[in-house]
Amino acid sequence: MKLNFENINKITISKDLLLDCGVKLNKFDVAFETYGKLDKNKKNAILIFHALSGDQFVTGLNKVTGKEGWWNLVVGENKPIDTKKYFVICANVIGGCMGSTGPKEICKETGKPYGLGFPVITIKDMVKAQAYLLDHLGIDKTLAVLGGSMGGMQALQFCSLYPNKTFTAVPIACAASHSAQNIAFNELARQAIMADPEWDAGNYISTGKIPRKGLAIARMAGHISYLSEKGLQNKFGRKLQEDKELQFSFDADFQVESYLKYQGYSFVDRFDANSYLYITRAMDYFDLYKANNGNLSLAFENTKIKFCIISFSTDWLYPTSESKKIVIALNSIGAEVSFVNIITNNGHDSFLVNEPKFLDTLKGFLESNYEDFKNEN
Amino acid sequence: MKLNFENINKITISKDLLLDCGVKLNKFDVAFETYGKLDKNKKNAILIFHALSGDQFVTGLNKVTGKEGWWNLVVGENKPIDTKKYFVICANVIGGCMGSTGPKEICKETGKPYGLGFPVITIKDMVKAQAYLLDHLGIDKTLAVLGGSMGGMQALQFCSLYPNKTFTAVPIACAASHSAQNIAFNELARQAIMADPEWDAGNYISTGKIPRKGLAIARMAGHISYLSEKGLQNKFGRKLQEDKELQFSFDADFQVESYLKYQGYSFVDRFDANSYLYITRAMDYFDLYKANNGNLSLAFENTKIKFCIISFSTDWLYPTSESKKIVIALNSIGAEVSFVNIITNNGHDSFLVNEPKFLDTLKGFLESNYEDFKNEN
Repeated sequence: MKLNFENINKITISKDLLLDCGVKLNKFDVAFETYGKLDKNKKNAILIFHALSGDQFVTGLNKVTGKEGWWNLVVGENKPIDTKKYFVICANVIGGCMGSTGPKEICKETGKPYGLGFPVITIKDMVKAQAYLLDHLGIDKTLAVLGGSMGGMQALQFCSLYPNKTFTAVPIACAASHSAQNIAFNELARQAIMADPEWDAGNYISTGKIPRKGLAIARMAGHISYLSEKGLQNKFGRKLQEDKELQFSFDADFQVESYLKYQGYSFVDRFDANSYLYITRAMDYFDLYKANNGNLSLAFENTKIKFCIISFSTDWLYPTSESKKIVIALNSIGAEVSFVNIITNNGHDSFLVNEPKFLDTLKGFLESNYEDFKNEN
Repeated sequence: MKLNFENINKITISKDLLLDCGVKLNKFDVAFETYGKLDKNKKNAILIFHALSGDQFVTGLNKVTGKEGWWNLVVGENKPIDTKKYFVICANVIGGCMGSTGPKEICKETGKPYGLGFPVITIKDMVKAQAYLLDHLGIDKTLAVLGGSMGGMQALQFCSLYPNKTFTAVPIACAASHSAQNIAFNELARQAIMADPEWDAGNYISTGKIPRKGLAIARMAGHISYLSEKGLQNKFGRKLQEDKELQFSFDADFQVESYLKYQGYSFVDRFDANSYLYITRAMDYFDLYKANNGNLSLAFENTKIKFCIISFSTDWLYPTSESKKIVIALNSIGAEVSFVNIITNNGHDSFLVNEPKFLDTLKGFLESNYEDFKNEN
């Protein structure tokens, strides 16, 4: 796959961004895409946050990879997030590898790629960068902020940080902090990347190498966690490749093996290994409980934002129980919150596939709130 | 860790072993340990099958590593499997790396380590090798065959293959075939090993190298699957190393990270990477359903063996539902079977830790059947 970074939209923010780690970024790039048109009253903006392996190319063609956008099913004309109606914004997170400032980009001070010289960032840092983007676009208040997985974490963090900057929020398939098992999966992924000699302490871009194998294995670990046991069983079971007999070798015999390998090695073509380290670290550090002395309600004190929390019954990465904790925290302070747990076999990946009830929920929630937001004074 | 292979007990079996892959092993070694004494009537023998990373050193000191045996908690004088009463046998599986014929051993024909020249083996092959060991020891019928995880699969396979060679069987925390998710985890592990350049297409022993990193990552993936989400959360949660603050680096911040790394890298000192490939492959190939045209009952037709199937409520690697399928298959042919699902947070690893109800079940089942077996004509 040949990547084409030339047509990326990006802005350079000339303000300081004080990161949680204490480092100050002055001047940083935010790469983003918009879909649809901002209406006169600026009441139809929706900010979508992408997940770990996502990017700003939500729908249509990804200008860099030439492939389909990651949420084509959900965002577009006449789709649940209808771009004939809404103005959709999505930015590459800082630390990412699709044009926003991150470890792959050239450090203006050294003239070399940052590599591990890039500061460790947090979900809060990502969200702050995107708030600057909203300022740049002249949007004081969005109709909705939303996202799945790490996108949901950003939505929660955004609402906590900017209670007046959005009318609604839809955190999907996420949690208010990473569990030990979440951290373990991410650490496995990071260890796999860092074990690859081609990684070269993060300097591979300078040496012209790519830690292909390490990153592929990291991605395979991720994919295992994105699907439910039942979903994997339904999709692959013990089916053999091309219905052959067992080969008594270490090549892929089972379809699930070739699926995993394909997912792993195709990912390498489009994603940066150091970005994978930085973004997983940000997810692991995310802890809205600790940030509020153990009381999640304090994260949303006095909020007027209307929440729709969505979970999926077979998501074992961010189980329904984690969404319920968020709902309880919001309920306890009288916040307006609806909660939907979608019954499905598709596991964590449910928000990326055709789940009619999920799509209907999203569509209905946005539509009814769009009317309310337009009438708000 | 310095390994000492000099004091290993092993026998060379001078019979042919026709493997499932079609290769014939003639002359092969089985390394084994015994504990306790075989009584005059030979009614007190218990054959224990070890799991993926286990070996023949069930209790006392492991003669090779100098560490404690892996089931010290369960096997020994006055323990649930009481070696004052029972004669306990445990053999290293073929394909293993503790003295039985496997990829690490010298091929008698080439004079070099087998490496990937070793034939791909199956659970059935492992079990057949151990039946030869019973012949060698002069034991026609054991009181029990038992084991957890891959040990449980061997117990099931043994009962199917040799309905008259054991009085009872206790398959623990296992399944009659590997699910897509099971295969996926094992494939991830194999890919991690084979991605390590030191693995060198399996020839690392000849080159004096060890694929440390690849094997460590494989083991980390395993460990994630052995613990329940709740168990991990109770044990580690988001606890930081030495209660320090977040370090904003890629070193281990969280205790769960250092736990995983420790488990991964300490494993490398005692285990052979190629053996890990062979044994996981054998597990993935295991399918007692397919071997019986989809009807698991046929695997045990007319069996007189008394079964005790044990599962653990939070085991997501081999969930209780898999054990229930075995119970149903046995029930449907009127076999004598008891089933216990132990409620615990300890996940798959429950059979290796102090689970009083599990230990009591095991002890009680063996004791009552010992009396019956002694009185059997």
